[in-house]
Amino acid sequence: MTYWTEPQLASIHKMLNPRSIAVVGATERMQYGGRFLRSVMQAGDRVNIYPVNPRYDELLGLPCYPSVTDLPESPDAVGIIVPYHRVIPVLRESAEKGAGSGIVISAGFSERGVEERRQLQLQLGNVARDTGVHISGPNCLGLANIKDDIWACSSSSPSGMQLKSGNIGLVCQSGASAFGPFLSRALGRGIGYSYIVSTGNEADLEAADFVRYMLDDDDTKVIALFIEGFKNARKFMEVARLAAERGKPIVAVKIGRSDLGARAARSHTAALTGSDEAYDAAFEQYGVTRVHDWDKLLEVAQLLADSPPVRQRGIALVSHSGGVCSLTADNLGDAGLELPELSEPARNGINQILEGFGWAANPADITGHASRETVEPIMEHMITEPGVGALLVASSAGEDQAKHIINVRNRHDKLVAFLYTGNELGASGGLDLLKYARIPVFHSPQNLASAMRQLHDYYDWHESRAEAGFAALPDMSPEQRAALAGLRSSERSALTEHEAKWVLDKWDIPTTSERRASDADEAVDAAREIGYPVVLKIESPDILHKTEVGALAAGLADERAVREAFDRIMNSVATHAPDAEVKGVLVQEMVSDGVEVIVGASYDSQLGPVLLYGLGGVFVEALRDVALRLCPISRLDAREMVAEVAGSRLLQGFRGSPKADVEALTDALVSVSHMAAHLEGTVAELDINPLAVLPEGRGVKALDALITTH
Amino acid sequence: MTYWTEPQLASIHKMLNPRSIAVVGATERMQYGGRFLRSVMQAGDRVNIYPVNPRYDELLGLPCYPSVTDLPESPDAVGIIVPYHRVIPVLRESAEKGAGSGIVISAGFSERGVEERRQLQLQLGNVARDTGVHISGPNCLGLANIKDDIWACSSSSPSGMQLKSGNIGLVCQSGASAFGPFLSRALGRGIGYSYIVSTGNEADLEAADFVRYMLDDDDTKVIALFIEGFKNARKFMEVARLAAERGKPIVAVKIGRSDLGARAARSHTAALTGSDEAYDAAFEQYGVTRVHDWDKLLEVAQLLADSPPVRQRGIALVSHSGGVCSLTADNLGDAGLELPELSEPARNGINQILEGFGWAANPADITGHASRETVEPIMEHMITEPGVGALLVASSAGEDQAKHIINVRNRHDKLVAFLYTGNELGASGGLDLLKYARIPVFHSPQNLASAMRQLHDYYDWHESRAEAGFAALPDMSPEQRAALAGLRSSERSALTEHEAKWVLDKWDIPTTSERRASDADEAVDAAREIGYPVVLKIESPDILHKTEVGALAAGLADERAVREAFDRIMNSVATHAPDAEVKGVLVQEMVSDGVEVIVGASYDSQLGPVLLYGLGGVFVEALRDVALRLCPISRLDAREMVAEVAGSRLLQGFRGSPKADVEALTDALVSVSHMAAHLEGTVAELDINPLAVLPEGRGVKALDALITTH
Repeated sequence: MTYWTEPQLASIHKMLNPRSIAVVGATERMQYGGRFLRSVMQAGDRVNIYPVNPRYDELLGLPCYPSVTDLPESPDAVGIIVPYHRVIPVLRESAEKGAGSGIVISAGFSERGVEERRQLQLQLGNVARDTGVHISGPNCLGLANIKDDIWACSSSSPSGMQLKSGNIGLVCQSGASAFGPFLSRALGRGIGYSYIVSTGNEADLEAADFVRYMLDDDDTKVIALFIEGFKNARKFMEVARLAAERGKPIVAVKIGRSDLGARAARSHTAALTGSDEAYDAAFEQYGVTRVHDWDKLLEVAQLLADSPPVRQRGIALVSHSGGVCSLTADNLGDAGLELPELSEPARNGINQILEGFGWAANPADITGHASRETVEPIMEHMITEPGVGALLVASSAGEDQAKHIINVRNRHDKLVAFLYTGNELGASGGLDLLKYARIPVFHSPQNLASAMRQLHDYYDWHESRAEAGFAALPDMSPEQRAALAGLRSSERSALTEHEAKWVLDKWDIPTTSERRASDADEAVDAAREIGYPVVLKIESPDILHKTEVGALAAGLADERAVREAFDRIMNSVATHAPDAEVKGVLVQEMVSDGVEVIVGASYDSQLGPVLLYGLGGVFVEALRDVALRLCPISRLDAREMVAEVAGSRLLQGFRGSPKADVEALTDALVSVSHMAAHLEGTVAELDINPLAVLPEGRGVKALDALITTH
Repeated sequence: MTYWTEPQLASIHKMLNPRSIAVVGATERMQYGGRFLRSVMQAGDRVNIYPVNPRYDELLGLPCYPSVTDLPESPDAVGIIVPYHRVIPVLRESAEKGAGSGIVISAGFSERGVEERRQLQLQLGNVARDTGVHISGPNCLGLANIKDDIWACSSSSPSGMQLKSGNIGLVCQSGASAFGPFLSRALGRGIGYSYIVSTGNEADLEAADFVRYMLDDDDTKVIALFIEGFKNARKFMEVARLAAERGKPIVAVKIGRSDLGARAARSHTAALTGSDEAYDAAFEQYGVTRVHDWDKLLEVAQLLADSPPVRQRGIALVSHSGGVCSLTADNLGDAGLELPELSEPARNGINQILEGFGWAANPADITGHASRETVEPIMEHMITEPGVGALLVASSAGEDQAKHIINVRNRHDKLVAFLYTGNELGASGGLDLLKYARIPVFHSPQNLASAMRQLHDYYDWHESRAEAGFAALPDMSPEQRAALAGLRSSERSALTEHEAKWVLDKWDIPTTSERRASDADEAVDAAREIGYPVVLKIESPDILHKTEVGALAAGLADERAVREAFDRIMNSVATHAPDAEVKGVLVQEMVSDGVEVIVGASYDSQLGPVLLYGLGGVFVEALRDVALRLCPISRLDAREMVAEVAGSRLLQGFRGSPKADVEALTDALVSVSHMAAHLEGTVAELDINPLAVLPEGRGVKALDALITTH
C-alpha cells in the first residue's frame, strides 16, 4: 500500500522550499500575522513576499494585496493567519489562484474541544485534499527551511535565525516545542537542522508525511520527531520501513500517555498490553530510536547523523582524569557496551609515551602528565585497535586538544565523540572547533552511554532487517475468510473455548484433542477416544475464567473420575454461574509436559493489532515479563520476542527439564500475528492462555483460548 | 562504636578553616607547588602564607623559609608538594613544629601499583595518626573553603575562584573531578559549595571523615560525594546514620565496579549478589541518594539543599507549551510521581484568568495567550492546592516571569523548582535571578523527574527511619558463641546440610524435622517417626547441589519407597560422586504447602555481610528478582526487602493458594542477618534455599541449607 502521491509530495516540496510566499492576515503588530510576515521577510532577497490584508496598501515597505486573488503570481506557500471561520474560504481562494501549499497558523479548531470545531477541522482537511493545496496545521507555528534560511513561522523567538544548517530534519506536532526548546537547545549545542516543521492539529498533512518528504531530501540524514500520537500509526510504520531501506534513522519523543491500558479488559492479554509499552514495541520493531527528553533527542540525532556506520562494538575511552574515566566506563558498562582490553602493541606504544605516569589501558587515564603533543599519538593507538569502533574523549576541550581530536577523526572511518567536562557557560574555543567539525558532543556520561547504546542498537537492528526484511501479511485462505465471516455474523460477544480453538485451527495454530459432551456418558466415551488422563471444562460463552467458578477438573485418570468431575462441574456452575448458557462439557487431552506460555492479541486505537507473549501464570501476572509487537510479525520478530522475555529461560531446559520446541513457538507467534491482523475490526481480544510449548520436536498446543468480538 | 575523636575533628577543622598555611615545595613555576602557592595567596589578606623552599629567599613577594622548623608560627595547615620520599620527613617536621594538619599533594604512593609504595603510604598514614597531624591525600589536589574564599589546591583551573558560596559540601576522592567537572559544571549552573575536599589515596583521613566534619558545619546542608570505594564501608554507614539523625542528606556517585560478582561462588546467594547491587542496597538502606552523573549529583544536591521538607506528594506543573507540559508530566509519571487533579475552586479561578485559552488543569498549559501579569495568580492557585507539595514551572525564564516565580516561592513553605527550556549559552537574566534566589533549576524533564523522585524517596526514607530507627546487632547468646567456636575449629570448608541446620537452629531459624540414617532400616525407622511422606537426601559435605547427582528423592509415601530411594541415592552418589565423603542419608519431613524463597548471605570485601532474599527457583535464577541489604537489618528493612521483590506477590495468596506467613519470613530475614553479622570472618557463604514460607500462622521452615567457611 502506498500512502503518498507525487502531487502531495510536490505540494510539501513547495511548502518547504517556497520561491514565493503569501501572508494572509499580515499585520504590523507583533502578533501571529506580524511575526509571520517579519520572519519570511528575512528571506526577501530570495523569495517573493506578498502580504495580504485589505486594510493595508503597504506593510513594512512591501505592497499589500487585498486578497489572494489579486496576487501577481500563484504563491508556492500561503501563510494563513486569519480568524478560524475565514480559513476555509482563504484556502479555497488560494486553490483557485493556483497556490502550491498552505501553512495554517490560525487556531480555534479541534483543540477547543467542541464538536463544531472538530467538524470544521475535518472539513478543512477535506478541502486541502480535494484541492491539492496541502496544508500544515491548523494551530501550528509554521516551519523553517534552515539550509536556505527561509523562516515561515509565527514564533516569538527571533534567536532561531542564528541556527546553523545541519542534517537533522525536525518534525514536531507542538509548535511551541519546535520553536521553543528544540530551537534554543540546538543553538546552545551547536546542532544544525535541515528543516523545522510544526504540524499542529494535522487536519491534512501529518508528521509522517513530512518525514516521507525528508526521506527524499539529500540534506537530511536523520529525522527527529516530537509527537503526541498518530492519526494513522500504520502510515508511520510504513514511513519507518522506508526510512530503514534508505538508511535514514528516525529518533522520536512520543509524549502523551493514553489510558487505553486502564480500560476494562476481559482477557489477560488486553490487561497486560499497555498503550505506551505498545508504542515502545512498535518503535523497536520498526527501528525508531525512542528517547524521553529534548537534549537526548538532539544528542542521539546528532550522533546518528555524524557517525559513520559502526562496524566494531568496542569502545576506546581517553581522559585526563581517572574519576571521569571510571564514571564514564561505568555508565558505558551499565548500558551494556564493551571497552575491550588493549592489545600488547598498543599498550607498549602508549606506555612509551606515558613514561610511567597514567595507565596504558582502556579506559586510558592519561593524567595531567600527558602533554598536549602526546595526546594525539595515544588516541591514534587506541582508535586503530582492531576491535574498536568508536573513540570517546572526555575533557574540558582545550583548543589544541580539539585539533588533535579532529585530526584523529579525519584519519579514520570510525566514530569519534566527545564528552565535555567543562563549564557550559564559559564555552571554550576548543568546544566550538569540535562542534564545527561535526564531532558529536555530550555533556554527561550517562547521556553519552545511553546514546552510544542506541547507536549500536540502531545498527544492529538495521543489519538484521537488511537480511531478514519486514513482516508481510499473507492473504487469507478461503477457510480463514469463512471463519471471519462466521465471526462477523456471531451474535455473541465471546466465543466458547471450543469455538475459539476451531478458529485457531484455521490459522494452523495447534490445539488440544477435545470433544464436546452433553452428559456423563458422552464424556466417558470422549475420554476413552482421546485417551486418559483427560481434563473436563465447562463449555460456555459466559464463563471466561473457568477456575474461578470451579468449572475445570484436570488429571482425570479413569471413567469414575470423569463421571464425578462431570457432576461436580455441572453443580458448581449451577451454583456459581446460574445464568450462564451451558453448551456442555469439553473433554480434553491432558498435556502436562510443556512449558506454559501466554500468547494473545489486543487492538490499540492508534497502533492496531498488538501481539503479546509471556511465560504463563505468575510470570505475566506478578512480573509483567512480556513482549509486545505490532501485527503482523516476521519470524525474526518472533525470535526477538522470545529472547526479550526473561522467563523464556524456562524454555531452554531448566533444572533438568527437556528443551522446549522454540521453533514451533516461533511459528505459532507468527500465525497468531497473522490471525490478529486478519481479524482486525471483528475481534476485540484474543487470548491463548496457556499455550503449552512441548519438548523439542513435539510442537505447541493451545490448552485454552478466548476470543471476544465487537 | 565511634570512629571519630575530638582531636581528629579539630585537625580537620584547621585544615578546612586555616588561619595560616605553609606551602612546602612552593615554586615560581606553574607546577603543583607553584599553583598551590598562588591559590592560597588569593586569601593572603586573611590567612598567613608561608612558602617553604630552601632554594628561595622570597617567592612572589613573600618571604620564603628554608624549612617548616623555621616558620614564625605553627601553621594550621601544611601543603606538602615534595617528592614522595620527602613527604614523611616533612610531615614529622610539621608535627614537631605543632602544625594542625597536612594537605599532601605529592603523588607516587599506592597509585603506582607497587608494593614498596603501598607500604610507604601505610607508613604515612601511621605517622599522621601517631602525630595527630591528620592529612588529606597523598595524591590529592587539595581543598577549598568556599564560604571564606580560601583555596588550598593545585588545580590548574583558575576559574573556580568565581564560584559562589553555597550550602553543599563536596567530597571527592578524585581531585581531577573535584576541581574539574564538579567545579565547572557548578559554575555553569550557578550552584554553590561550602567546601570542596579532594581526598586522594586516603592514607589517613577518608571521605567519611570529612563528611563527619561537615555534619557539624552549619553552612553545609547537603553533602555531595564522588567516591570510588570505601576502605571502611561501615564507617561510612555510621556517618550516614548520623547524617540522617541531623537531617543532612548525602548524595553520592559511587564509581568503579569491583569484580567481586564474578568470583567463583559456591552458593546461589553469592552468585546472585553483585557488588554494585550491594552498594545500591547499602545506600538505599542508609538513605544515601545515589546518582550516576555529575550534573545529577549537582542537581539533586541542590534540590535537597534548597527544598523545604516536602509534606505533600502532589506536584503542580505550569508551562506555556502543551508539548513541554506533556513531556514533563510523562517523565514525572514514569518516575512514579503524581500530578493531582485541580480542585474546582482552583479550576474556576484559573479559567477566569485564561478566558477560554489554555487549560485550567494540572499540568496547566497556559499557552502564549497568558500574559505576564496573569502567570503569578495562576501559579498561586496551583501551589495553594492542599495536595500539592511542589510547584514546577517550565519556560525560557523571562525576567518578569522569574520575579513572579520568586514571589510565589517566598509566599509559601513549599518547593518551587524551575525547568529551563531555553538556550544554555544565551543564559537569560531571568535564569540568573532564579539561581540567585536559590530556586533549583533543571535543564531536562527527565533529570527533573528523577530528582523529584529522589527527593520524595529521601523524605519517605527519613520519616520511616525517624519512627523505626536503624538495625542494631544483639549480643550473641552462649549457644551462638559455642556454634561460632565450633565453626572456627571446623577443618572442612563446607558443612553438611544437617550441620548447617544445626547452626540455623541456634539463631532461631526453624528447620525441617529430620534424622540422619546410615542404612535403609534406620531410614525407615526415621520416616515412621517423622511421618510420611518424607524426603531422602545424601548427607555429605562434598555434595553441595544434590539434585545434580541424583542424591535427593522426594514424596516417599511408604516403607518400600524409602528403601528403594535409599538404594537409588547410594548407587547414584557412588557413580556420580565416587570421592565424596558420605555421612549417611538425611530423612526429612516433606513440606509441600509453602512458597519457596531463598534467603542467604555473602560477604563483600568493602561492605561486609550482605543479606539476599528472593523467590525460589526460576525467579532468582532466570530473573534475578532479588533484594539485598547490609547486615544486620531491622524488621522495617526486612519488610522493605519483601516489598521490593516482584515475585513476593506469590506470598499474598496467588490464584487461590493461601496467604503465606510473611511475618515469620520477616523474623527469619532479621535472624539470618544477625547470624551473618555474628559469623563474619568465619563463614564465607550462607544459603537457605529453599526456605518454605508456610500458610499464615504456621511460620517458615528451612528445607535445605548450605554454609561454607573460610
